[in-house]
Amino acid sequence: MSAVIWPEQPLLRATRLRLHAQDQAIALMRADCHVCRSEGLSPRSQVLVVAGKHEVQALLYQIDSPLLEQGQVALSEAAWDALHISDGDEVQVRHPPVLESLAGIRRRIHGYRLNAQDLSAIVRDVVDGRYTDVHLSAFLTATATLPLDALETVHLTRAMVDVGESLHWNAPVVVDKHCVGGLPGNRTTPIVVAIAAANGLVMPKTSSRAITSPAGTADTMEMLAPVDLDMATLRKVVETEGGCVAWGGSMHLSPADDIFVRIERELDIDTEGQLIASVLSKKIAAGATHVVIDIPIGPTAKVRSRENAVRLSAKLRATAADFGLALRCMFSDGNQPVGRGIGPALEARDVLAVLQNEPGAPEDLRERAVLVASAVLELGGAAAEGEGMRVARETLDSGRAWDKFKRICEAQGGLREPKRAEFVEPLVATHGGQVVHIDNRKLSRLAKLAGAPASPAAGVHMEVRLGDEVARGQPLLYVHAQTPGEMAYALDYARQAGDIIRVEA
Amino acid sequence: MSAVIWPEQPLLRATRLRLHAQDQAIALMRADCHVCRSEGLSPRSQVLVVAGKHEVQALLYQIDSPLLEQGQVALSEAAWDALHISDGDEVQVRHPPVLESLAGIRRRIHGYRLNAQDLSAIVRDVVDGRYTDVHLSAFLTATATLPLDALETVHLTRAMVDVGESLHWNAPVVVDKHCVGGLPGNRTTPIVVAIAAANGLVMPKTSSRAITSPAGTADTMEMLAPVDLDMATLRKVVETEGGCVAWGGSMHLSPADDIFVRIERELDIDTEGQLIASVLSKKIAAGATHVVIDIPIGPTAKVRSRENAVRLSAKLRATAADFGLALRCMFSDGNQPVGRGIGPALEARDVLAVLQNEPGAPEDLRERAVLVASAVLELGGAAAEGEGMRVARETLDSGRAWDKFKRICEAQGGLREPKRAEFVEPLVATHGGQVVHIDNRKLSRLAKLAGAPASPAAGVHMEVRLGDEVARGQPLLYVHAQTPGEMAYALDYARQAGDIIRVEA
Repeated sequence: MSAVIWPEQPLLRATRLRLHAQDQAIALMRADCHVCRSEGLSPRSQVLVVAGKHEVQALLYQIDSPLLEQGQVALSEAAWDALHISDGDEVQVRHPPVLESLAGIRRRIHGYRLNAQDLSAIVRDVVDGRYTDVHLSAFLTATATLPLDALETVHLTRAMVDVGESLHWNAPVVVDKHCVGGLPGNRTTPIVVAIAAANGLVMPKTSSRAITSPAGTADTMEMLAPVDLDMATLRKVVETEGGCVAWGGSMHLSPADDIFVRIERELDIDTEGQLIASVLSKKIAAGATHVVIDIPIGPTAKVRSRENAVRLSAKLRATAADFGLALRCMFSDGNQPVGRGIGPALEARDVLAVLQNEPGAPEDLRERAVLVASAVLELGGAAAEGEGMRVARETLDSGRAWDKFKRICEAQGGLREPKRAEFVEPLVATHGGQVVHIDNRKLSRLAKLAGAPASPAAGVHMEVRLGDEVARGQPLLYVHAQTPGEMAYALDYARQAGDIIRVEA
Repeated sequence: MSAVIWPEQPLLRATRLRLHAQDQAIALMRADCHVCRSEGLSPRSQVLVVAGKHEVQALLYQIDSPLLEQGQVALSEAAWDALHISDGDEVQVRHPPVLESLAGIRRRIHGYRLNAQDLSAIVRDVVDGRYTDVHLSAFLTATATLPLDALETVHLTRAMVDVGESLHWNAPVVVDKHCVGGLPGNRTTPIVVAIAAANGLVMPKTSSRAITSPAGTADTMEMLAPVDLDMATLRKVVETEGGCVAWGGSMHLSPADDIFVRIERELDIDTEGQLIASVLSKKIAAGATHVVIDIPIGPTAKVRSRENAVRLSAKLRATAADFGLALRCMFSDGNQPVGRGIGPALEARDVLAVLQNEPGAPEDLRERAVLVASAVLELGGAAAEGEGMRVARETLDSGRAWDKFKRICEAQGGLREPKRAEFVEPLVATHGGQVVHIDNRKLSRLAKLAGAPASPAAGVHMEVRLGDEVARGQPLLYVHAQTPGEMAYALDYARQAGDIIRVEA
């Protein structure tokens, strides 16, 4: 956004309020401020705050107290950062320009399709912070209720790539992988990156934080090494080690996605078209040429049937093809959590156990990592077709994957030990029998209520798997929490939610 | 919502921030507050604030400054009012209970229909202030993109009636009217009420403020008399005079609608199912038995074709029948604004001119009022079929309507003179010719940018009608504004918007 101070308009003195509201820019003005009166501004209207060359659109609240003097405007941290100002600097506050792209949102709400230009204008305004929560939610809901079609998905993907940074690698083949979530604890990525890089592939993995799950790959990896890398560090890690596991958000690869994610989290939805645009925009912007997508299928996973998985993979391939991206989808078992931990630190410990070939390491996590790595090795040309599994296993067994992982962590800023939660409480079997069903959605909910991912040591540690025999009073899982409030909240839910783990006599 | 202070939880001292954020409840806490830490609360999360018997769900912001002491929580005016507390009173802040009705919103987003129970739970949570803007926008968007079906519309209407107050009148016939908006300046209601009441009908009219238009009937009537009446005053006005024109919001007849309206205004949408539920829930709650609906049709009116009007009226009648409501729809010309004023005060002056039989009174507004009043008189049994027009005209011509209107205004708190704007600027014809098209949507936009309805004297005064011959430089309309900022904003728009009034040589 370009900004100009209008000579005929009055200036206000900016005050830093040290108000934390995530990425929300907030301006606080006196209700009797002359600017509010001359501009006709009322509480909760959107305003444009201009300072020097910078501007930010903010939500206005008004205050009737001596907290603010006449001629002052107080700003939240997000607004402060966007304006690059110091306390007492002069700013202007006025009506924001008319939000033209909203006409596209309205047409979409009424069932009309959007073209490349519409979507580009929408995504641009989203990234410029001009959309309110109401607008963002309307866009995401309208494109879920009447799902994005193939062309819209391509246009949205392109628009999301175009507003962000793009990475370019000096390599003909750059591999990447993505797992369509919904399966708690499925943390194969750090293992796959280690195996791929140990076999000479370039795999600059940028991962996201959790959307609606208790942990994203970036949240888990952060327990083992810094993931908030700047571009220069990321490049150095990949050039030296061939691979990395970094948080994509700090790369600004798909800044619109980071905004959409917050709304999707609040609604707890994650729809097909948005999912495709989100995944592919990040892969394309990250400079990938060959991508493996793991789609777990299960009644309580994100994809619930083979039919849905086939449809999703066809759409993913079609969209990828439009961008010249080679894409392979693999379907996997999504009937129960992977590994034992659910939550950043608990999952990180599972990853370490597999990489270190610990005797008690979760076998299912290891097998999944081998499957995904095999597809990556074959697609990327580091193993012949049919040889991927053998190569992947050998890389783990020999300790080469663990060595590579340690080097990657060191390059990212240092390997570290995952935290442990202060409070741990069991959920026990109320009767004996066999474990016949595990509800992934309720498990995720439980881990989230316990505080994951915001409290990284929080989550759930599974003590049983499908088919296990249990006795009455035997722990089925342990809830880990970092505060008593969150523990109480999670246990309340566990009591009310019905069978999270169903045991039949 | 019932509320309990939990004995084991710490208390905080409430501080009134005198922060104005419309109906938004906001809580401000120190980032290092022990409650934030023990409950795992982060900025922009939803919290439950409990004080004595009252509670309110609020949006949390955190602050890092000496503005707040340890152990304090600062609250916005909406939160303060909901809690009925005094400065320094003790409150508790904790996680709100899980929002179960959101599962219905998610199902609806994914294309499933909602039943009576789902909609009742959603509307209850909306009215209890438990929905964020993101949730509200998702509900309204999902039910617009996949429009509410007949059954959902009935369920939603019922749910909206059930959460509010209902009026009951000691009369077998209670008439009401509604105009499906979209036609600037179409302010027949005060005139129709005066005619109906002068002919012995009971017409306790509760009107809304503007949703997406520059003025609602309540905004216009407020220029002539108080409209924010309590229930006792309203009853007394109707018992004495037979009719009233009051603001429905203060009656709490359909409190959910007032919340939906704010979101619809922000999105600038107003869809069929929501429109039916909004209109009928208010009529049913207001105790009406016979309702006339005026549907203006025109290319830039809300309803753009006769086909759409027929469909809408069929849906209105079907939904009304479910509630035992007699309903008659009438279609009218929606090709151009009605009267000369657009905006609360400017429209109020048109209403006065018609009621007072002024020689220059806008003929089109008079004729429309006569048409609607005729339908009301016939449906309500105060005129034989075919006699309505004659009776309505006679009531106006004789001055009986004006006498009744004065008495109604006096009963509501006193007749008053509409304000005049401080700043008036013409929009002139850039060439001579005939007026061939008037864009109602752009006109409304212009009046809104000038400040209507928040600035009640602001708006547009039309100088021409379709078919008029104009010379180059002749004013087509005047923009009225109460501040220079709004005038500049409106004139900017007028310059950029293309033909608001098209003149062809």
